[in-house]
Amino acid sequence: MTIENLSSFKTPLLSHLNEKGEATMVDVGEKLATQRRAIAGCEIHMKPETLSMLQSGQIKKGDAFTVAKMAGILAVKKTAELIPLCHPLPLDYIEILFFDRPVGGGIFVQSEVRTTAKTGVEMEALTGAMTAALTIYDMAKSYDPAMVINNLHLIQKSGGKNDPTISF
Amino acid sequence: MTIENLSSFKTPLLSHLNEKGEATMVDVGEKLATQRRAIAGCEIHMKPETLSMLQSGQIKKGDAFTVAKMAGILAVKKTAELIPLCHPLPLDYIEILFFDRPVGGGIFVQSEVRTTAKTGVEMEALTGAMTAALTIYDMAKSYDPAMVINNLHLIQKSGGKNDPTISF
Amino acid sequence: MTIENLSSFKTPLLSHLNEKGEATMVDVGEKLATQRRAIAGCEIHMKPETLSMLQSGQIKKGDAFTVAKMAGILAVKKTAELIPLCHPLPLDYIEILFFDRPVGGGIFVQSEVRTTAKTGVEMEALTGAMTAALTIYDMAKSYDPAMVINNLHLIQKSGGKNDPTISF
Amino acid sequence: MTIENLSSFKTPLLSHLNEKGEATMVDVGEKLATQRRAIAGCEIHMKPETLSMLQSGQIKKGDAFTVAKMAGILAVKKTAELIPLCHPLPLDYIEILFFDRPVGGGIFVQSEVRTTAKTGVEMEALTGAMTAALTIYDMAKSYDPAMVINNLHLIQKSGGKNDPTISF
Amino acid sequence: MTIENLSSFKTPLLSHLNEKGEATMVDVGEKLATQRRAIAGCEIHMKPETLSMLQSGQIKKGDAFTVAKMAGILAVKKTAELIPLCHPLPLDYIEILFFDRPVGGGIFVQSEVRTTAKTGVEMEALTGAMTAALTIYDMAKSYDPAMVINNLHLIQKSGGKNDPTISF
Amino acid sequence: MTIENLSSFKTPLLSHLNEKGEATMVDVGEKLATQRRAIAGCEIHMKPETLSMLQSGQIKKGDAFTVAKMAGILAVKKTAELIPLCHPLPLDYIEILFFDRPVGGGIFVQSEVRTTAKTGVEMEALTGAMTAALTIYDMAKSYDPAMVINNLHLIQKSGGKNDPTISF
Repeated sequence: MTIENLSSFKTPLLSHLNEKGEATMVDVGEKLATQRRAIAGCEIHMKPETLSMLQSGQIKKGDAFTVAKMAGILAVKKTAELIPLCHPLPLDYIEILFFDRPVGGGIFVQSEVRTTAKTGVEMEALTGAMTAALTIYDMAKSYDPAMVINNLHLIQKSGGKNDPTISF
Repeated sequence: MTIENLSSFKTPLLSHLNEKGEATMVDVGEKLATQRRAIAGCEIHMKPETLSMLQSGQIKKGDAFTVAKMAGILAVKKTAELIPLCHPLPLDYIEILFFDRPVGGGIFVQSEVRTTAKTGVEMEALTGAMTAALTIYDMAKSYDPAMVINNLHLIQKSGGKNDPTISF
Repeated sequence: MTIENLSSFKTPLLSHLNEKGEATMVDVGEKLATQRRAIAGCEIHMKPETLSMLQSGQIKKGDAFTVAKMAGILAVKKTAELIPLCHPLPLDYIEILFFDRPVGGGIFVQSEVRTTAKTGVEMEALTGAMTAALTIYDMAKSYDPAMVINNLHLIQKSGGKNDPTISF
Repeated sequence: MTIENLSSFKTPLLSHLNEKGEATMVDVGEKLATQRRAIAGCEIHMKPETLSMLQSGQIKKGDAFTVAKMAGILAVKKTAELIPLCHPLPLDYIEILFFDRPVGGGIFVQSEVRTTAKTGVEMEALTGAMTAALTIYDMAKSYDPAMVINNLHLIQKSGGKNDPTISF
Repeated sequence: MTIENLSSFKTPLLSHLNEKGEATMVDVGEKLATQRRAIAGCEIHMKPETLSMLQSGQIKKGDAFTVAKMAGILAVKKTAELIPLCHPLPLDYIEILFFDRPVGGGIFVQSEVRTTAKTGVEMEALTGAMTAALTIYDMAKSYDPAMVINNLHLIQKSGGKNDPTISF
Repeated sequence: MTIENLSSFKTPLLSHLNEKGEATMVDVGEKLATQRRAIAGCEIHMKPETLSMLQSGQIKKGDAFTVAKMAGILAVKKTAELIPLCHPLPLDYIEILFFDRPVGGGIFVQSEVRTTAKTGVEMEALTGAMTAALTIYDMAKSYDPAMVINNLHLIQKSGGKNDPTISF
């Protein structure tokens, strides 16, 4: 971004850029507030022993996951503070769930966020899943610092002008 | 965690658990403040066209990465707000860098954090890399919502009582 | 909360629990945004001399209460950051008032919060009253650290689907 | 503000004062949510060499302004945390632009904020312009600590009950 | 506080007042950083059925208390944001515990905070106990909105120049 | 900032730029923690009637200035959240004072911040003065929206390696 006058650019494909190609917030003033939902997820790969310790045995069952869930929910509410071009939104519902990862051991974190707003909550869902996963990492890192968080992605979104449910 | 008296447990392997197996903060009161450093990283997989758009052409070169870098630096400073059992720490240095991902296209995000404190900055480095990557996702998601963030992991830590540099 | 599949539970009496008995956010997506109000209060017990100092004499009249009022108003706006399962809400009005406590000396703090939203502002009102009281404590604690905050409770709520004003 | 009963005052001219003359939040419960906009600006006076360094040459073109723009946008979203009697609002659009200052050298920072809400966004626009300007100061202060920020003012507001666009 | 020149006042008994009697921050620049600790507590009075529901039966054991503990720990780290004249401090350790209240039913919340700093952590401990109690209230309020939080007080402090452990 | 390898640049004059000319945080790891102080100030120009209303008459004396002082103190503690490349620092003392502006009517806001840290608190002092001034604006804007904030500048700094007191 410069302070000079620039010759005009074409409308960019990326919505977070203004006509000069600078990073900018999307104007949602003319959009309707509708019910919107986004689901995101990621995986935490860990040693089988770490998974066992988290699930039972060494720790009182449930605590690590409740801590991670709270961290994820609180982070969803901080999304517009963390991601510079996100709009601050009211939120109707936040849920963070943990599942056995189907292949290869580890935990699958799923985050769902719902709103009635002018723009979607994809970034909120991604932020919630990632923060919950980092909190699991934090609680087990003294034993297994080589854990890896993988495959953070948007799973599904719905709502908005075009309204279809889109799965990724 | 319950309010009952529980029979005592053995010291757990996971440091963020007290003797009753409840999630708790580690007491660092007796530790010395030493210079510590952590480096973390993650990858963003995207369509080749998305990478081209981020690197040149459609957007004014550099902006998306500067936005993501600022988001990552600010998130590092919020780590103790996001990860419940992290200690609030003074920080000496934060750097977020972006590289071409060696294999298969995409971007590698590297985050480095340095402190002079009683405990390490692994969670800070991971939080910085994650938030920078999510910000890249946010800026390009209108074009490529199927981007995936992978392989968020601790790369190296040094400092602390045992002091060796450990790479993961 | 565990990552296993659990057999289903009955709907619990406590609304902040999902069907598996885990702590969760209430989904307000189908609720209507209506005008809602909550009033909460608490008392600060202190030495008569402390009360005299706060009201007049040693300190310039009014300052301690203005500081406490601002702290309470700002805390109301932070409620969803502090109480994990609270929804972030727009707010129409916040007021914090201080009264002579009718019996036994001390100060009564009253907090009122109004919104036009899908859920009520009881937690916001309670958070405002308590934070204002803690700020009074902070300002007088060098002289009277044995002050006690008592009887923090919801006084009245109105608005919402059933709409009646309920006093407690 | 005192805890005594005060005889009533006349309605004050300043809206942020209750009938007792105490600082208080304006009740917007009965106002309609309408589209509102505010534009604010300020100037940064600096040595010509500092301006040259920011615009080209010593630094990679654009970075300092992108950093300042992000800081301004994030600060707009924090306005209700910073200014005690501001209402937390949803926001539709935030833009921060930098221009050559017409007279005497330096940079003009312009901030625009749009909302659909019950109250205006003047404070949000002012907070964004000032924080962006402070961020420019921060990035150049090692070379030119005598920079001055001047003429922070509201340029235009529109929307609300009376709706006319007012320029200042 | 006014902008006029005031004739000087005597040094006030309350430390958070400057020589003009205005609310102000205490200057800790000349104090030594020493190990300090504060313990605070409060009680939550509730219906016996509510207590039973929290402890067992309707909810999965432990969750409500883990949520409240995390809320308390995170709030301790926000104390300097909530209480205007508190200093931002590094923290060594935070613990929140829940006990059966000895008389009359209910829960006793105890919060302990440790630091190595120039000033004490009394406000941090009180803020942690209060927020944990409010979180319990939030989770059970759909069933028992008449719960009352009582007896929030400082239990013990140690450390600092005079160093003795003082119990209240 | 790009992700390509760039040919190296000379060390820039601006300290917040790395060798590639990108915005970056200064590494303070090798600096000593010393006592540092910064004083900043700004002016608020307003109609004489607005000044009269703030000082006496329409409003209960003192409130507007206490509110602004608290806002300024709290903002100082948020500086590292607002200015992206600032280090989070412990703070020893914050003071915000208001004076009659010597020429032309209005208010002079002075902010002083002290720390014992590895880097200075210039940005903290500037942020405090700015936020206090914006809060005065907020409280009087219903009557006088054309107020202007002027001459925000660093007045004096001391401490650090070179240690001299420098006035601007």
